[in-house]
Amino acid sequence: MASATLFTNVRPAGRAATDILVRDGRIVPAGEPAPAGAAVVDGGGALMLPGLVEAHTHLDKTLYGMGWYRNEVGPRLIDRIDNERTMKRTLGIDPARQSARQVVLSVGHGTTHIRSHVDVDTEVGLAGIEGVMATRERYRDIVDIEIVAFPQSGMLVRPGTVGLMADALRQGADVVGGLDPSGIDRDPKGHLDTVFGLADSFGKPIDIHLHEGGELGAFAVELTIERTKALGLQGRVTLSHAFCLGMPDVAAVDRLIEGLREAGIHIMTTGPASVDAPPVKRLAAAGVTICAGNDGIRDTWGPYGTGDMLERAMFVGMRNNLRRDDELQLALDICTHGGAAVMALDGYGIEAGCRADFVLVEAETVAEAVAGHPPRRLVVKGGRVVARDGRAMAEAP
Amino acid sequence: MASATLFTNVRPAGRAATDILVRDGRIVPAGEPAPAGAAVVDGGGALMLPGLVEAHTHLDKTLYGMGWYRNEVGPRLIDRIDNERTMKRTLGIDPARQSARQVVLSVGHGTTHIRSHVDVDTEVGLAGIEGVMATRERYRDIVDIEIVAFPQSGMLVRPGTVGLMADALRQGADVVGGLDPSGIDRDPKGHLDTVFGLADSFGKPIDIHLHEGGELGAFAVELTIERTKALGLQGRVTLSHAFCLGMPDVAAVDRLIEGLREAGIHIMTTGPASVDAPPVKRLAAAGVTICAGNDGIRDTWGPYGTGDMLERAMFVGMRNNLRRDDELQLALDICTHGGAAVMALDGYGIEAGCRADFVLVEAETVAEAVAGHPPRRLVVKGGRVVARDGRAMAEAP
Repeated sequence: MASATLFTNVRPAGRAATDILVRDGRIVPAGEPAPAGAAVVDGGGALMLPGLVEAHTHLDKTLYGMGWYRNEVGPRLIDRIDNERTMKRTLGIDPARQSARQVVLSVGHGTTHIRSHVDVDTEVGLAGIEGVMATRERYRDIVDIEIVAFPQSGMLVRPGTVGLMADALRQGADVVGGLDPSGIDRDPKGHLDTVFGLADSFGKPIDIHLHEGGELGAFAVELTIERTKALGLQGRVTLSHAFCLGMPDVAAVDRLIEGLREAGIHIMTTGPASVDAPPVKRLAAAGVTICAGNDGIRDTWGPYGTGDMLERAMFVGMRNNLRRDDELQLALDICTHGGAAVMALDGYGIEAGCRADFVLVEAETVAEAVAGHPPRRLVVKGGRVVARDGRAMAEAP
Repeated sequence: MASATLFTNVRPAGRAATDILVRDGRIVPAGEPAPAGAAVVDGGGALMLPGLVEAHTHLDKTLYGMGWYRNEVGPRLIDRIDNERTMKRTLGIDPARQSARQVVLSVGHGTTHIRSHVDVDTEVGLAGIEGVMATRERYRDIVDIEIVAFPQSGMLVRPGTVGLMADALRQGADVVGGLDPSGIDRDPKGHLDTVFGLADSFGKPIDIHLHEGGELGAFAVELTIERTKALGLQGRVTLSHAFCLGMPDVAAVDRLIEGLREAGIHIMTTGPASVDAPPVKRLAAAGVTICAGNDGIRDTWGPYGTGDMLERAMFVGMRNNLRRDDELQLALDICTHGGAAVMALDGYGIEAGCRADFVLVEAETVAEAVAGHPPRRLVVKGGRVVARDGRAMAEAP
């Protein structure tokens, strides 16, 4: 049976070596014999982890594969936003092509699910959304992609953007995005009312970029908590970055964390080294779901990024001073089950009955996989091998 | 002539492709013809960088190659120090073997010079120093190693340590180490007087671990400046970590930076993500020499570290929010020329007349080399190829 495969000699989450039978794209309960004619793939004693979840990136605007971009951009957020709009025209950053390139790179590193913010503005219109939708369709067998309609250049300050956001949601975007309600739109109430209004009208979840630090960011968190509760959107709202949760006033942060927990709001972090960052141990202890993402990979914003979510787990670990093995397990959970919870994935995991989306890593323990992010021996999606030795089998344009 | 080699088609520091002739271990001025019989090595158009300088590590106590160490250590500095002394006995961390393993790993990544702190205490005595000295001798043709006698467990609080430090300097240690004058020895004046006293007696430079943050760290910096000036040790003293230079009081930090500049004191940073860190752009602008190191690699302190100084340049860049190409050049300079200045290396660089210690990297630009730290095609030490494709030719035990 072509639809059954036996993956021999793998160590699920670092437990004892075993064989994993996959049938019709799902993991079969231990003990069931492999059917005659099942394919056999040697796992070589590798560590088996669930597929990595890239819960925050920007597929539409990576420069990966376009030659090195010499970054000479000014230091302010608005410098970077304006420069990017210009560069999209000047450099010819094709969203379909570039998203495809990043997808193939990411799958090679073991990513099986991606949430991508995609720019919607009055210059590019829905071109980004359409490009990433084409990539989603093209690579649907090797990765699941969720699209956030993202008003990168502001929403209320650029008339026409709200209508484009609605169009994006009608055409296939899955999530309503938002951005720095005070810093960019200069109107926290207006911005958040619009974002939540769109989510309410279209029945979609929300994912808001919140770079605002300190008290200003804390205010936006409070407004988000109020609206989430008022509209019954518990479990459907994510705050990305949320640097303000790293501010020094620990008592104030604890009050925010309690509010986030009550409202079932999720937090996305990249584990940023140069700014305040959400404290993942305290958030996890409070029961807040945390996910992580690589954010932009080699784009006009910055030169970093490999697309590897195990490397990202390492960054989250380093940023949060995670050193013990149990702490590194948390970093991995954030880059796997945390992202799966935020994206509300069905049948995610490496237990019996789950979808067979997993990664084999050349590491002794989960902690070693995080700290060293060694090469991926094999990536499996829906029971099929989609990458070997760090490289996806699918071609990139 | 076996002592002449022509490295063809390389791009020094990203400039136009050229051939580099090496004779008797030195780079020959451009234009000189290769002698008949010179060996030829194809550079394949790779970027040519000077040998990477690992200016702060702990060769004697990496666990690299010993199987995964399950870290269950408590959170305080003293927990980690005490745990390590215990583990040295329990795990059998042989300094000669372990330093050799790390050296071979590092050379594969393009490191040509290492400054290693090596523990000196009343339990291990000089065993660590002797082990790393054996490794230095064994690998002298592929890497230069400088040894810092390092009182990891405290100096004044553990009677007998000062005598051992003096013995270490007599036997071959090159630099006098120190550690958290207040935090560990509980006597900033006593600790620093002892460190500077040893340096003065033996005519050696100084490199002090200073984890102390905020005002306490600033006080230690001031005491160090005073002693450096009093003893005429300008250019011979390094403060490692110096987290206090990242404290929020920018005006206070500026005063410290001015003092460091006047006293010619160097700063070593790892670009740590989870604590305050020295601001490299401000230090560099003030004319303070900065170097970097990987610190401990996979040891009882923490699980991280690959030994790659280009990855470290990326960490320094991420920690300091370096995004522009000119900023990433600074990150590379810290991991090359900065370390060379701190170690007072003679003939370091990739200009004519310099020692032929260099690295070929598969990258378009210096910025790409830092941001992506791609594999090293070739590592050359004293004109000889010592590593290919990320792996040293020398064997590790």
